[in-house]
Amino acid sequence: MNLIILFGGSSYEHEISIVSAITLKDKIKKHNLSFVFVDRNRDFYLIEKENMKSKYFSSFEYKKAKKLNLQKGGFFYKKLFGNENINGIVLNLIHGRDGEDGKIAGMMQFFGIKCITPNIEASVISYNKLYTKMYAKEIGVKVLNYRYVTDNSYIPESFPVIIKPVRLGSSIGVTIAKNKDEYLYGLDVAFEFDDGVIIEEFKEGISEYNLAGCKAGELIFSKVEKVNKKEFLSYDDKYCDFSRKEVETQKVDSILEEKIKENFSKIYENLFNGALIRCDFFELNGEIYLNEINPIPGSMANYLFEDFDEVIEKLSNSLKFEKRIEIDYSYINKIQMAKGK
Amino acid sequence: MNLIILFGGSSYEHEISIVSAITLKDKIKKHNLSFVFVDRNRDFYLIEKENMKSKYFSSFEYKKAKKLNLQKGGFFYKKLFGNENINGIVLNLIHGRDGEDGKIAGMMQFFGIKCITPNIEASVISYNKLYTKMYAKEIGVKVLNYRYVTDNSYIPESFPVIIKPVRLGSSIGVTIAKNKDEYLYGLDVAFEFDDGVIIEEFKEGISEYNLAGCKAGELIFSKVEKVNKKEFLSYDDKYCDFSRKEVETQKVDSILEEKIKENFSKIYENLFNGALIRCDFFELNGEIYLNEINPIPGSMANYLFEDFDEVIEKLSNSLKFEKRIEIDYSYINKIQMAKGK
Repeated sequence: MNLIILFGGSSYEHEISIVSAITLKDKIKKHNLSFVFVDRNRDFYLIEKENMKSKYFSSFEYKKAKKLNLQKGGFFYKKLFGNENINGIVLNLIHGRDGEDGKIAGMMQFFGIKCITPNIEASVISYNKLYTKMYAKEIGVKVLNYRYVTDNSYIPESFPVIIKPVRLGSSIGVTIAKNKDEYLYGLDVAFEFDDGVIIEEFKEGISEYNLAGCKAGELIFSKVEKVNKKEFLSYDDKYCDFSRKEVETQKVDSILEEKIKENFSKIYENLFNGALIRCDFFELNGEIYLNEINPIPGSMANYLFEDFDEVIEKLSNSLKFEKRIEIDYSYINKIQMAKGK
Repeated sequence: MNLIILFGGSSYEHEISIVSAITLKDKIKKHNLSFVFVDRNRDFYLIEKENMKSKYFSSFEYKKAKKLNLQKGGFFYKKLFGNENINGIVLNLIHGRDGEDGKIAGMMQFFGIKCITPNIEASVISYNKLYTKMYAKEIGVKVLNYRYVTDNSYIPESFPVIIKPVRLGSSIGVTIAKNKDEYLYGLDVAFEFDDGVIIEEFKEGISEYNLAGCKAGELIFSKVEKVNKKEFLSYDDKYCDFSRKEVETQKVDSILEEKIKENFSKIYENLFNGALIRCDFFELNGEIYLNEINPIPGSMANYLFEDFDEVIEKLSNSLKFEKRIEIDYSYINKIQMAKGK
């Protein structure tokens, strides 16, 4: 199988995506890999495997690479006579804007390219934290209480609270505020990144669990990871976290694990078909709460799976093209007949 | 101003979109129009104004028109030396799939093309009737009780009910069922179009009101139209409805009108910025309920506006490009420094 890793993007998480792609280069061993980079100007480049090093991008050397055109059927580059297509299944590894907001998913569908990605609906529901909350409530998954604000007129009654821009990942723009001053400052920070912000009670001592998975016929679950966290993982923590080898296994209670999997299934089916996602849950007094859905987790959460190559292969084989709609102009013909034309 | 009417698409409403575009040809008088057709294979064609007749499409004559490529910056066609761009602001007039599911919106944003369209989030929220209900509840707009089903295991306790595929417009696949047999048959019909279905109580004698509008600085409202309907408008009724000249004005109570506008504002702001939408409301015992959001209404609901040209011009002038994200590789550089590379 040829897998095309699509990474970069016009996103605050552009650099994280580069690191994610470099990580996957070593983690995917059984499949043939191509690398397509979306630069900050949204131009596409075909990156040779030996150039998959962070410096190649930060030094802008990538501009010497083959430029690609996205068209019906795939990514094409110019040859002396005609255009050549890069064959394969695309893996959308663009974190944040472009990748997780539905743009790439929509383009891949429109141009008829098979792609491991959250689809447009799944992207919108998971990229926007307000919609994630709405969706979770609709399907019967618990979430922590929250308030959605678009200005600083609301002041919480008690602290600490956690302030999150409604559309960003990787903890960018997130603050924990212990009092009103910190709160107002945190809001300012968050509004630099988005025009909507979610305010949540910050619960000390809450446990966090991560579970990744995808559907290929049936659901494939990863290990459940208990997050050993400090007060909270900052952007830097998460960023450096990509390089880790595997999860420190900490025994997770089997009843709790079942509950987490049950919640994951409700969230996944069937909205996330075609995607490998990671859900971050909280546990408080035996109850499970959804924190976030990561529809394109860092380095695809490969470290949570025993046999990541196999998971990717099964998921790829489960991908389907969009249903073809037959258009036969019967309505227009009927009207023309009626008009006697 | 040059306006590029984008129509067609791989959609069950492909033919409606053609009729919509032909209608707008006569309704937009002050602006220069270009027509870009997306055929059932998702190829783009530049259609000359004089060829904007339904037969040109139903006879497949359009295949002789200039083929276009969608790329960064616009729609291009090949000239002897290089490529030529069609300049202008795009008006997304593709009803249903492709146009209303977020694909076109995403591509326009990605390729940096200004476009009158619901954005990706707005598309997903309005295209999927379940998400419309979730959204309405979140922002405090009433909806009729509903049940979302994915199979035929649920049987309503009382009839009549209305059965709607969760993602289609123009009443395609919609049935009103007066008893269990009709219900099961109606479900079968709906599941031919979608894997999710919304069941609603069908209220006899409910009044329906339509209101269109958009934001250009402030909200611009159309007239409020009271729908003179038969039991319910079928696909054929709606289809033939496009050709009508103007709304039969029926005096709408001013308190009711205010309530409808208030609900419209809640729904529109700021999710639908950049789009001209029509909201269909029900009125029952003085309460207003949202029925549906049409983010790309048939022929842009031009018949509801006094000066449609002006509305389009104001809306066009309000469009903004997506915010540019600066990427300076500071994180990658920091890590390289730390590693001593």
